[in-house]
Amino acid sequence: MSKDDDGLSSSREMSLAEMRKDPRLVPYGESNLGMPLELVDGLLVPNERFFVRSNASTPLIDPRCWRLRVSGLVAREVTLALADLRRMPVRRVTAFLECAGNSRSRFMPTAEGTPWANDAVGNAVWEGTPLAGVLALSGVAPGAVEVVATGGDEPAMRRALPLAIAQDPETLLVWGMNGAELPVPHGGPVRLFVPGWAGIASTKWLAGLEVLDRAFDGPYNTVSYVIRDAAGRGLRPVREMPVKSLISQPVDGSRLTAGARLISGYAWSGEGAVTRVDVSVDGGVSWAEAALVAEAGRRSWVRFELPWEARPGVAQLRSRATDERGLTQPDEVAWNARGYLMNAVHKVNVEVSEEP
Amino acid sequence: MSKDDDGLSSSREMSLAEMRKDPRLVPYGESNLGMPLELVDGLLVPNERFFVRSNASTPLIDPRCWRLRVSGLVAREVTLALADLRRMPVRRVTAFLECAGNSRSRFMPTAEGTPWANDAVGNAVWEGTPLAGVLALSGVAPGAVEVVATGGDEPAMRRALPLAIAQDPETLLVWGMNGAELPVPHGGPVRLFVPGWAGIASTKWLAGLEVLDRAFDGPYNTVSYVIRDAAGRGLRPVREMPVKSLISQPVDGSRLTAGARLISGYAWSGEGAVTRVDVSVDGGVSWAEAALVAEAGRRSWVRFELPWEARPGVAQLRSRATDERGLTQPDEVAWNARGYLMNAVHKVNVEVSEEP
Repeated sequence: MSKDDDGLSSSREMSLAEMRKDPRLVPYGESNLGMPLELVDGLLVPNERFFVRSNASTPLIDPRCWRLRVSGLVAREVTLALADLRRMPVRRVTAFLECAGNSRSRFMPTAEGTPWANDAVGNAVWEGTPLAGVLALSGVAPGAVEVVATGGDEPAMRRALPLAIAQDPETLLVWGMNGAELPVPHGGPVRLFVPGWAGIASTKWLAGLEVLDRAFDGPYNTVSYVIRDAAGRGLRPVREMPVKSLISQPVDGSRLTAGARLISGYAWSGEGAVTRVDVSVDGGVSWAEAALVAEAGRRSWVRFELPWEARPGVAQLRSRATDERGLTQPDEVAWNARGYLMNAVHKVNVEVSEEP
Repeated sequence: MSKDDDGLSSSREMSLAEMRKDPRLVPYGESNLGMPLELVDGLLVPNERFFVRSNASTPLIDPRCWRLRVSGLVAREVTLALADLRRMPVRRVTAFLECAGNSRSRFMPTAEGTPWANDAVGNAVWEGTPLAGVLALSGVAPGAVEVVATGGDEPAMRRALPLAIAQDPETLLVWGMNGAELPVPHGGPVRLFVPGWAGIASTKWLAGLEVLDRAFDGPYNTVSYVIRDAAGRGLRPVREMPVKSLISQPVDGSRLTAGARLISGYAWSGEGAVTRVDVSVDGGVSWAEAALVAEAGRRSWVRFELPWEARPGVAQLRSRATDERGLTQPDEVAWNARGYLMNAVHKVNVEVSEEP
């Protein structure tokens, strides 16, 4: 890997085709890859194993030719090159990224959409510049309500953010991921990144920003990514991801030998920092507070661990995270047609055999 | 009424005690007043009839002595007088204000909290200056997460807003209401006003703003104003009010004579502009689109009307609003312990007698 001027290692060679060769990643159709959580034990997920979710084709855009056009309800339209962005203030945030449909396969009956296991979440250091600065260059006019981001994919993803979120200092235009150039499968050369929000908000291969005086009526805002009632009526938009934890070790359905084991996993919340994870080794009868062994600020996931003396027999392990707002994981999540926001307490069944 | 320098009529004489003498308003304890919607037919609710919700005592603060202290994670603490605020850019927004517990009495079984009928909502012109400007005076430091507003009541209401919402250009420090000085029962001399959000966000008798580097753990953020599951676990915070409509005429349980009638009411959404209201006169079997006869921007409620040829017998009228995001009212709202966000389709039963 070479280093560019800003110290980021080059990752142009990391293609979706390369990623698809990794037998540990789970393909969902042509353009999506899930990452089973047992593949990580650190706080960051390596770029080559980070889950991939794309709604359309994966465009290959030469970073030297990439342009971002800012238009709509602005004082002046501007077009920026990557070099322009990189001259703006740099901000890095360690943050999780989770697809709104992560864990969809846990809904019964089956919900519509990509049947993700618990494999559409990751955590990385995102490097970029605040979107607010770019909007300020253009001058957002009075009456602005939303900012529509357009992707460079085909057909182009178009997705809107409320203006206040677009102007949040942590909403970034990102060109770096874990110290490397943002890889193409993850939206390189530049993607939008909205910490805490469902992945759909973080438009990949960003090509355009349009400021609107009304709520955008595109399908990714009004048809999908909406929580609906049983009659199909839209009740509220999918926004911040709710607090959630997943046990990464041991793996559901696995067999262990009796003895001293470590239960580990990850927890995050789009509403704020995770402050506590409780773990049960007896199917929810009793709970113990796990240790948070790795943290990186309120937008990052945390790693939790709890020692466990595994005895022969079957055991159901559970994890429940709580965030700084006191929000916590429910035992059950009400079914919704598109299978969004599954954050019920995670349950892992294992079989423990006698020591050999 | 006298006029002050800024053209606002004086309303210092409008006290809670005066309001409580109006037999048409509905007292809920000492400090709360509901306004039955049939008392309005215009787009704005007069100040003396606007619903009142206070969590503690009603302080009487001399506007000349009022001070706002900005502290916490800021470059410099500042203390501002009302005259300082009034020298800042003035912004007016016509917006609804609804208590998160409005219509709570429609939950079965009874939910905990003030048993509001459909009488804790109103609409007014709010005049003030963007909170963002005041925060800029103090200089919000990096790492800021939330802004805690403190009221001048006793014990003081303390309630936090996410920084992005605090900096939204429509989040105001308000000193005027419908062309008058902000009356004391509504939070005068100065209140916070967050368009679209549950009323609890719009702290009355504003006394302090504190910028925090974390989510605030006060009870109005973490104990109340949280949607919980049946086991009492907090799932998500109460934020924007969902889309809702109420039929104001005819009144539920009333008797009419047959003939040409007008069904009227109001509709609003914290997520955006109301674009459509459908009305049924046969208990939901068939629906007709009502006319939106008065509007004032996307933060205001709209007035809707539908002519109706009332025939002898009983009739159930219903209304369902849809907003610009395509969100709409459900037939039922899942019960929650505190009875928040009741926005089910409104049902009004009337008896129609033969023409005399």
